[in-house]
Amino acid sequence: MIIDKKTRLYVEKDAMPGVKRVMNKLAGDFEMVFGEKPAVNECDADILFSDEKNASEKNVRIIAATLGSSDFLDKLIAAGRFDSSAIKDKWEVYSFGVLNTENENTQTLLIAGSDKRGTIYGIFHLSELLGVSPWYWFADCTPLKKDNIEITDGYSMISKIPSVKYRGFFINDEWPAFGNWTFEHFGGFTAEMYDHVFELLLRLKGNYLWPAMWTSNFSLDGPGLENARLADEYGVVMSNSHHEPCLRHSEEWDLIKGEDTPYGTAWNFDKNREGLTNYWRGGLERNGKFENIITMGMRGERDSEVLGATATLKDNIDYIKDVVTTQNQLIKETISEDLDSVPRMIAIYKEVEKYFHGDENAEGLKHWDGLDGITCMLCEDNFGNLRTLPEEWHRDRKGGWGMYYHFDYHGDPISYEWINSTHISRTCEQMSQAYDYGIREIWIVNVGDLKPQEFPLSYFLDLAYDIDKWGQENKKVVKEYTEHFVDVNFPSFNEADKHKTGELLDGYTHLNYTRKPEALNPDVYDPVSYGESEKVAVKATILQGIAAKMWSGLSDDCLKDAFYQLVYYPVTAAANLIKMQLFAGKNHFLAGIGAMKANEYAAEIRKCIDRDRELVSEYHSINGGKWNGMMLSEHIGFTHWNDEECAYPTIMLTEPANRPRMIVTAGHGKRASQGGDWTRQKLILDELLDPKVSESFITVYNGSDKKLKFAVNGASEFEYEIKDAAPDWLKIYVPGKELVLDENTNEVRLTLKLDREKLMASPLLSDGIASTTLTISTERAHVDVEVWAGVCEDKDFVPQLSEIQLSQEKPPYVRDFVVSNELGLTIEAKDFVLGNKDVAEEGEYRVLSDFGKYGSGIKAFPTTKYFTPGKDAPYAEYSFKVGKQSDPSQETGESFDLFGTLITAPGNPVVKGNPMAVGISVNGGEIVTITTLDPGYEGGERTSPQWASGVLTQDHKTEFKFTAKAGVNTIRIYAIDPGVVLERLLLRQRGTRWAEGYLGKVPAWIEG
Amino acid sequence: MIIDKKTRLYVEKDAMPGVKRVMNKLAGDFEMVFGEKPAVNECDADILFSDEKNASEKNVRIIAATLGSSDFLDKLIAAGRFDSSAIKDKWEVYSFGVLNTENENTQTLLIAGSDKRGTIYGIFHLSELLGVSPWYWFADCTPLKKDNIEITDGYSMISKIPSVKYRGFFINDEWPAFGNWTFEHFGGFTAEMYDHVFELLLRLKGNYLWPAMWTSNFSLDGPGLENARLADEYGVVMSNSHHEPCLRHSEEWDLIKGEDTPYGTAWNFDKNREGLTNYWRGGLERNGKFENIITMGMRGERDSEVLGATATLKDNIDYIKDVVTTQNQLIKETISEDLDSVPRMIAIYKEVEKYFHGDENAEGLKHWDGLDGITCMLCEDNFGNLRTLPEEWHRDRKGGWGMYYHFDYHGDPISYEWINSTHISRTCEQMSQAYDYGIREIWIVNVGDLKPQEFPLSYFLDLAYDIDKWGQENKKVVKEYTEHFVDVNFPSFNEADKHKTGELLDGYTHLNYTRKPEALNPDVYDPVSYGESEKVAVKATILQGIAAKMWSGLSDDCLKDAFYQLVYYPVTAAANLIKMQLFAGKNHFLAGIGAMKANEYAAEIRKCIDRDRELVSEYHSINGGKWNGMMLSEHIGFTHWNDEECAYPTIMLTEPANRPRMIVTAGHGKRASQGGDWTRQKLILDELLDPKVSESFITVYNGSDKKLKFAVNGASEFEYEIKDAAPDWLKIYVPGKELVLDENTNEVRLTLKLDREKLMASPLLSDGIASTTLTISTERAHVDVEVWAGVCEDKDFVPQLSEIQLSQEKPPYVRDFVVSNELGLTIEAKDFVLGNKDVAEEGEYRVLSDFGKYGSGIKAFPTTKYFTPGKDAPYAEYSFKVGKQSDPSQETGESFDLFGTLITAPGNPVVKGNPMAVGISVNGGEIVTITTLDPGYEGGERTSPQWASGVLTQDHKTEFKFTAKAGVNTIRIYAIDPGVVLERLLLRQRGTRWAEGYLGKVPAWIEG
Repeated sequence: MIIDKKTRLYVEKDAMPGVKRVMNKLAGDFEMVFGEKPAVNECDADILFSDEKNASEKNVRIIAATLGSSDFLDKLIAAGRFDSSAIKDKWEVYSFGVLNTENENTQTLLIAGSDKRGTIYGIFHLSELLGVSPWYWFADCTPLKKDNIEITDGYSMISKIPSVKYRGFFINDEWPAFGNWTFEHFGGFTAEMYDHVFELLLRLKGNYLWPAMWTSNFSLDGPGLENARLADEYGVVMSNSHHEPCLRHSEEWDLIKGEDTPYGTAWNFDKNREGLTNYWRGGLERNGKFENIITMGMRGERDSEVLGATATLKDNIDYIKDVVTTQNQLIKETISEDLDSVPRMIAIYKEVEKYFHGDENAEGLKHWDGLDGITCMLCEDNFGNLRTLPEEWHRDRKGGWGMYYHFDYHGDPISYEWINSTHISRTCEQMSQAYDYGIREIWIVNVGDLKPQEFPLSYFLDLAYDIDKWGQENKKVVKEYTEHFVDVNFPSFNEADKHKTGELLDGYTHLNYTRKPEALNPDVYDPVSYGESEKVAVKATILQGIAAKMWSGLSDDCLKDAFYQLVYYPVTAAANLIKMQLFAGKNHFLAGIGAMKANEYAAEIRKCIDRDRELVSEYHSINGGKWNGMMLSEHIGFTHWNDEECAYPTIMLTEPANRPRMIVTAGHGKRASQGGDWTRQKLILDELLDPKVSESFITVYNGSDKKLKFAVNGASEFEYEIKDAAPDWLKIYVPGKELVLDENTNEVRLTLKLDREKLMASPLLSDGIASTTLTISTERAHVDVEVWAGVCEDKDFVPQLSEIQLSQEKPPYVRDFVVSNELGLTIEAKDFVLGNKDVAEEGEYRVLSDFGKYGSGIKAFPTTKYFTPGKDAPYAEYSFKVGKQSDPSQETGESFDLFGTLITAPGNPVVKGNPMAVGISVNGGEIVTITTLDPGYEGGERTSPQWASGVLTQDHKTEFKFTAKAGVNTIRIYAIDPGVVLERLLLRQRGTRWAEGYLGKVPAWIEG
Repeated sequence: MIIDKKTRLYVEKDAMPGVKRVMNKLAGDFEMVFGEKPAVNECDADILFSDEKNASEKNVRIIAATLGSSDFLDKLIAAGRFDSSAIKDKWEVYSFGVLNTENENTQTLLIAGSDKRGTIYGIFHLSELLGVSPWYWFADCTPLKKDNIEITDGYSMISKIPSVKYRGFFINDEWPAFGNWTFEHFGGFTAEMYDHVFELLLRLKGNYLWPAMWTSNFSLDGPGLENARLADEYGVVMSNSHHEPCLRHSEEWDLIKGEDTPYGTAWNFDKNREGLTNYWRGGLERNGKFENIITMGMRGERDSEVLGATATLKDNIDYIKDVVTTQNQLIKETISEDLDSVPRMIAIYKEVEKYFHGDENAEGLKHWDGLDGITCMLCEDNFGNLRTLPEEWHRDRKGGWGMYYHFDYHGDPISYEWINSTHISRTCEQMSQAYDYGIREIWIVNVGDLKPQEFPLSYFLDLAYDIDKWGQENKKVVKEYTEHFVDVNFPSFNEADKHKTGELLDGYTHLNYTRKPEALNPDVYDPVSYGESEKVAVKATILQGIAAKMWSGLSDDCLKDAFYQLVYYPVTAAANLIKMQLFAGKNHFLAGIGAMKANEYAAEIRKCIDRDRELVSEYHSINGGKWNGMMLSEHIGFTHWNDEECAYPTIMLTEPANRPRMIVTAGHGKRASQGGDWTRQKLILDELLDPKVSESFITVYNGSDKKLKFAVNGASEFEYEIKDAAPDWLKIYVPGKELVLDENTNEVRLTLKLDREKLMASPLLSDGIASTTLTISTERAHVDVEVWAGVCEDKDFVPQLSEIQLSQEKPPYVRDFVVSNELGLTIEAKDFVLGNKDVAEEGEYRVLSDFGKYGSGIKAFPTTKYFTPGKDAPYAEYSFKVGKQSDPSQETGESFDLFGTLITAPGNPVVKGNPMAVGISVNGGEIVTITTLDPGYEGGERTSPQWASGVLTQDHKTEFKFTAKAGVNTIRIYAIDPGVVLERLLLRQRGTRWAEGYLGKVPAWIEG
C-alpha cells in the first residue's frame, strides 16, 4: 500500500479531540514529507463503511480510532474484520495494520488504540514511518521530502504495553535559557508553547509532564487554565513537582496567600491547617477534572524542609501523615470517592526519605497504610545514580514506585544546566536496575531547559517505553541506540555521515559525562601525568574536526539547523570548553616552571574564551533566531554549586628570563630542571621500567626569548636520530638537524625508544634492569636525566623497584622514585580471565560495554541479589606477575607487599548503610571483604565527601593491601552487595604512589 | 692659611714610595679642585729647611713625612718645632697642622704620620678638607671646583688611634658584575684596577683587603706579582679569604697541582702532607715579603668541609692542629723566627667553629696554645647578625679577635648580590656589640661587587675607625651618619637637597633591609591585610618621585653620575622592584576573586619589568659606559638560594564575566562577595572595634567589562556623602555623584567614618559596641556588610569580642570573627612607660632609634651582661586595658586570657645554645622566663628554620599566653640574656588570630 499526498485521513466525528488534534499533526507531517497537507476528514462510522463500499476510484485512506469510543471499530469487530482482543483493556496499546478490504478500490490503514494515547501513539507510529522525527519542531529535524512511502499490504502490528506506566520529563531550572526563549517567542509559558511540548512528549511516546515552575504557573499562564486543558486534550498526564501538592504550583502560593484571604500566610500545616486545606481544595477543584497524578504530602516552601530543626523524626512523620490524610479526604470530596481510581504520588525526596524509612523509635511512613495506592516516587542523587530502592518485601506495594531522575540539576555539589553531560550507558545501567527493583509506575526525568537534552531524553523515554529493547539486556545498547537516534533524526545522511554523527554524539556526551563542563577547571586533568591533558585535548580536537568538516558540508542541507543543535554546537562548544581548561592547566603548569610555552597556551585560552561566546551567539541566531536565549546558561568554571561567581580560567603570562635559559622535564614527570651549576636537579625517567611502555620523551622548554643551542650527551647535530649518544638499547629521535630553542621554538621534544632485545644483551643489566644518563647541555647549564629501563615484556607485570634502585646513593635533590604514569598495573575490570562459570546459575558478572568514565565495567546480575563469596557469588579473576624484570614468572618464594585500588562507578547502595562490598581473594587464599563506601556514606548528601566528590569524578576509589608472591599471581573479585560496577583494578608496589591525575591510564575510548 | 693651586707639595726624597704615591694622588685632588696639578717635589730635609728660610716670596707648602723615617721630622723635633710625643709609637696616627714658621713668607702645613698609613691618612685628611670624596673615582663624586680653601693658622690636630686595628673589605662573588666590568675596562683583575681599589680603601681609612678570588689570582694577575707589590707600596695589608691559607689563592691550586708537580693533587693534609707543605711554602716565600695577615688552617676546596663525614670531631681538631703547626713552622722558616711579629689569622667559620669549641670528648682549638698570636676571625651569620662572641675569660687572648661581616652573600637561605640591602642601624648595633665583646683586631666586610655598597661600606670603615663617633653610644647615629655621607659625597647640594638625598638613602636601604629584593615575591607583603601592600607601594612611589625630581634637576651637575649611582639607581630600581612584586601580589589576589582591576595591575607589573631592564641599561651607559657590567647581578624572584631559576612574577589576567558583576570586599578583609542570591556571603567589617581606627572602607570591584550601577542601602545618587543610609554614627563617603562600575572604573572605594561621640548616644549600643548592616546592591545582587563599631577611645585597649558578638547566630558562610588588621594591640617596644630607674646602675634598656624592620627597638646595656630579673635586670613596662568598650578601665574582677607575641630582631645568641630569654611579669606577678629562640636553634645553619626564616623576615616572633584582669594592666619585660633587641609587643584576645601579613601594623617609618 502506497501512502502519498493523495492519501485521505479520517477520524470519526465523535473521536476524542486529542485524537483529532494528533491526526491534524499527521496531516502536517504529510505536508512536510509529500508537500501537501491533506484534510482530516471527520465522519460517522457509517460513512466510513459506505465510502469504502462505494469507492469507484482507487483510494488510500487512514483511519484512527480508539477502542471503546468508536462505532467504526465496534462495527468492524461485529463484522469480524477486526480482532480487538490483542489490545482490549491494555494500557496505551495500538494495533496498526492494513485492513482487509471490502472493495478493491479502497485500501485502509487502520490505527486502533486501546485507549486515547494508544491511538495517538499509533498515529505517530505512522509519522515515524514517514520519516518525521519527534524533534522535527523542537530541533528542526526537517524530514526528507518523498513522493510516497510503501506499507506492505500484509503489514500489521500490535504495539507492546509500555514497560513503565507513566513516562515523562520535568522542565525545570528554566532560567535564564528556556524562560528567556519562551518569553521572546511565546510571551511566556503559554499553551502556544506547551502545544509543542505536549506534541514532542507524545511523539517520544511519553505521557507525563511536570511543567516549568520557577516564576511560572502552569494553571494560570495558558492564559488561564488553557495549558492544563490542552494537556488533557492531548492525553498528557500532568503532575506538579515533588513539593507542589494538590495540583497547586509553588509560585501560586505567593500570589494568593495573605492575611485577609482564605489561605492565610504560613506554609505550615500545624499553624495554618485551614488555610492550606482551602488552598489545596482549590487546586483539586480547578484541575481535578483533568488527567493528573496528584502530588501528595508537603515539603517546605521552595524545596526546603518544612519543620524546624527541633522537631523529632516522629513529629515529622506524624505531620506528613496528617497532611496526606487531609489531602486524601480532599480528593475524595472533590474528585472521586474511589481514591484508588485517582493517580497520586508522593516524593520520597531529601528529608522525606528519612520519614519514609523511620528509625527504631519512629515507624516510617512505608509501614503506613495511608500511602496505599499512592505511588512512592524515589529519586536518584541528582547526578544519575540511584539511591535507596524498594526492598523485596515492599516491591509489589499498592500504588507502586516511581523514579525521579536528572539530566540537569541545580544544586550541590555543582549544578549542570547547560548542554547534555549524561552518557546514556549510565542511564541504561541505573534505570534498568530501577526496573529490576520494581520501579515501573512512573519515570520522570528533569531535563532543565529541555533543549540541550534531546539525545538522552529520547533515550530515557524509549527505555521507559521498551526496556527489553533498550535496557541492560541489550549488550550493545549504547551503540545501537545512538545509531537509532541518528537514523530517526538524520535520515538523509549517508552511512558514513551517520556513523560520524554517532561518534560525535557518543564522544561529546562521554567527555561531558567524565567531567561535567561546569565542574571543569584548570586543575582537573593533570597537565603532565599520564599525558592525560594532551590525550583529552586530542580527543576533543578530533571531535571538533569531524563536526566542523560535516558542518561545512551541510550549508544547503535541510538538516543543517538540526545538525547544529544536536551535534555541531554541543560537540564544538564542549570540546572548546574542555580545551580551554586543559590549556589553562598547561598554562599554569608551564608558567609555574617559567617556560615561555606558557604564553602560547595563554593565547590559546583566549581563543577558546572568544570561541565560546561566539558559539552562543551562533546558536542564538540559527533558523532565524528561533532558539534565541536557549544557550544562556553559564557553563564555565563554577566556583560554587551554582553559576554565581563562576570564573573563566585565569590566564598566566611568563616573562622571559634575562639570559638564555633551558628548562627540562623528563617524560610525564612534573619536576623541571634548568641545569644551573648550583641548583641542578637530576631528573629520573622511570617510565621505561613499565613493560607496556617502550617509548618516552624528554621535553626541553625555552625559558627566555633568546636563541639557545643545546646538545644531548655532547651531540648537537644529526638527522632525526642522535646516534651513539646512549647505549644501543636506547634510541633518541629529535625533530630536526639541530637542537635549538628560539623565539619560535619554545619546546623541543626528544623521543626515546627502548629496544628491549638490545637491552637484554646489555652489560649494564642487573636483574633485568639498567640505567643510563642523558645529559642535556648548553654552554652554561646541564641537566642529567637518569633513564631506567627494564627488559620485561609481560604486560601483566607489576614493576618492582629493584634493590639496585633502592640502594642508589642519590643526592638529596633527586626525587624519590614514585610510580609515575603507567609504572603500576592498571587492569580493566572487563578483562577478567576465568569468569564465573561454576556459579553461573546463581548469578554472573556481565561486561558493560561503552560504559562510564573508563569505557567499560562489570556488574553482577541479577542486580537485586546479595551474594555470598565462596557459595553463590560470581567472581572475576585476574592474573598478574611480580618479581624481577629478568624473569617475572620465576617463583623464587619471595613475597611482596602490594597495594590495590578498586575503581567502581559512583553508585549508591540500594539500601541505606549498605557498604557496597566485594570480596577479594589472592592466589586462592582467604576471601577478604572490601567495602567500597566509607562509613557514614550517604548518597545525595553534600555532607558526605565520598559522594560529593564521586559525582564529580565519576568514580569511587577503594584502596587495599595484600601480599603477592614472586611469579604469577591471581586475584579474584567476588560479588557481595548489589549495584557495584567494577571498572578498574590498579596494582602498585609498596613505597610508591600513583602520579596525580584525573584519569590515570587514559581509557581506550579517549586514546582510540 | 690659604691653600690653592700655587701651594707646593713636598716629600722627602727617601720618603716611602707609598707616601709619594699618595702625595701624587693629592696632587690629582688639587687638579680636580683648583684646576691645576701641582708637582710633588722630592727633596732632602735640608732643602726643606733652607727653602723655608730663604723664601723671598710668599709661598704655601705642604710637607708629608713619617716619623722614624724622616730626617725632616727629626730636625723639626730637634729644633723644638714639632712635638712627636702625641703620635710616637702609635698605630696609624697622624698630626696635621700648620707649622710655626721661621720665615713669614713661608707657611707650611705639616702632615706627620706615626707610620706609613698614618702619613697617608693625614694626606687624605687634606683631601677631605679639599672636598674630595673617597668615592671621587669609584662613584664619580666629582669635587666642587674652588679657588682655594682656608686652613685656620692655628689649625692643628692629632688623629685618634683607630678603634679597630685592621679594617677592610672583601671583593667576592664578583661574577657576573665586577668580573665583567674589570675585564672590559682593565683586562682582568689587574694592578691598574686594584690601584683604584687600594686608593679607595685608604681614603676610607681602611687598611686591609681580601681580594677577588673566584676565577682570579691576586698574586698572578697584576700581571705577575704586581697587585701584591702595589698593595704593599700603598700600605694595604693583604689577606686571602678564610679558606685560602699561606698567601695562596684558591684558584691557584687548580693551576699548579698535578701528579708530576711538587704539590700533588689531593687537597688533604693527611694524604698529601708534602705537596701541601710545598704549596704553602711557595706562597709564603713569594708574598711573605709584603705586609699581610696570613690565613692559617685549612678548609676543603672551594669553601667546603675538608674531612669526610666519618671523621670524628677530635680527628678534625687534630687535623687542624697539625696543619697550623706546620704552617707556623713554615712561617718561621720563610718570614720570621719571631712568629709573634707576623700577623696571622684563622677563620672560625662554618665547621671550623665546631673544632674551635670542641665538646666534652674533644678539647676545642680555643684551648690550644698553638693559636696564640693568631687572630681568631669570627663571623656573623652571613646576614649581618653576629654569632658566637668571645667569652669573658677569652676576650683578651693573644692575637685577639676578628669579625667577618657581610653586605653581600652568595648562599642560603637566599643570596643577595645586587644593590645594598643593609640598613646601617643594624650594622651599628651588631658591630658595636662585637666591639663590646673585644673584637677589635680585624673587621672585614664582604662587599660583593663593591660598587653597589658605597654607603654601608663607608659606614663600616668609619665605624671601625672611630667607634666612639659612629657607634651605638651615638643615639642619632643613623641620621648623623647619613648626613655625613651626603656631606662628603654631595658637597655642592643645598641643604634641602642634602636632606632629601639622606631621606632617599635611608629610605631605600630601610626598605631593602626589611626584605631583601631577591627574596621578594608576590606572596611576601599581604595584598590586603593591614593595607601593607598599598602603604609600602606609596612609600616606594614617594622615594621614586623625590629621586626622579632631583635627577631631572641635575642634568648639568658635576655630581649627576654620582647621584645616579649612589642614589637614583638604587632608589628607583629598588622601589620599582618592590612595586613589581607588590603589584603582582595585588594582581594575583584580584585575579583570584575575578576582579577586572587585576588587569590594571598586570599592566603595571609589565611596566615595572620593562623599567627594571631599562634601569640596568641606563646604569651601564652612564659616564660613557664606565660602569658597564656592574649591574649584571640577577635580582628578581629568587626561587632557590641563588639566582639560578630566578623568575619574574607571573602575570595573571582576568576574563570579564558575561554579565554585569560586582565584587565587594570589606576593609582589609580578603573575603569577597558577589552578592548573588544563592551564594551570597555576608561580610563582616570589624575594624572599627579598634579604638585606634575610626575610618574604614568597602571596596566594590567590577567583575565584568560592562556598566553596572550599584547602591548603598538603597541610595544611589549623592554628592560625596551618602546621607541617611546608615545610623548617624557612621558616615559614608563616595568618590562622586553616582555609584557606577564600568570599563574605566574597575574599583570604587566607599569610605566609612565612625563618629564615636554619636555612637555613644546610639540606642543600638550594648556594652559599648553596636553594629549596622550596609547593603551594597545592584539590580540582581546584594551584599550585606555587617559593620561593628565600639566606643572605646583608649589607644591601649585590647579589644575583646563581646558576648553579643560571640552569641550572634550566623549562617555558616559568615567567617568567624578574627582579629584582623589592627584589631589587636601593637605596642612599639620603645614606648615603655616606666623604664628602669631603680636598677639603672646595673644596666639599662636603651632605645635604638631608626632601627630595623619596625623602625625602633630597645636593648639592654651593657651588651655583655647576663641579668637576673628581680635582682639586677632592667625592665620595660607597658600598660594596657582589657574589658568592655563602654568602660575599659572598669575593674570588674573579671579575668581574660590573652596571647602575647614578642617581636625581636633576628639576632643570634652570643654563646651557642643560649635561648635569648627575657622575663615577663604581668601586674607585678611572677616573672616568667620566655625564650625567644626555639630549642636547637643555630644561627647561620640553614637547617635551623627559625634562623633561616628570621634572616628573611628580619624578625623573630615568640608567642606566650597570660591572664589579664578587667581594667588597666601592666606588663614588664625584664632583660635576661644579652643581645636581645625587643621591637614590638602584640596582644590579642583568646579565640582570635592575627591577619596574615609581613609587617602587621605598618611601621611609622613607612607610613610617615
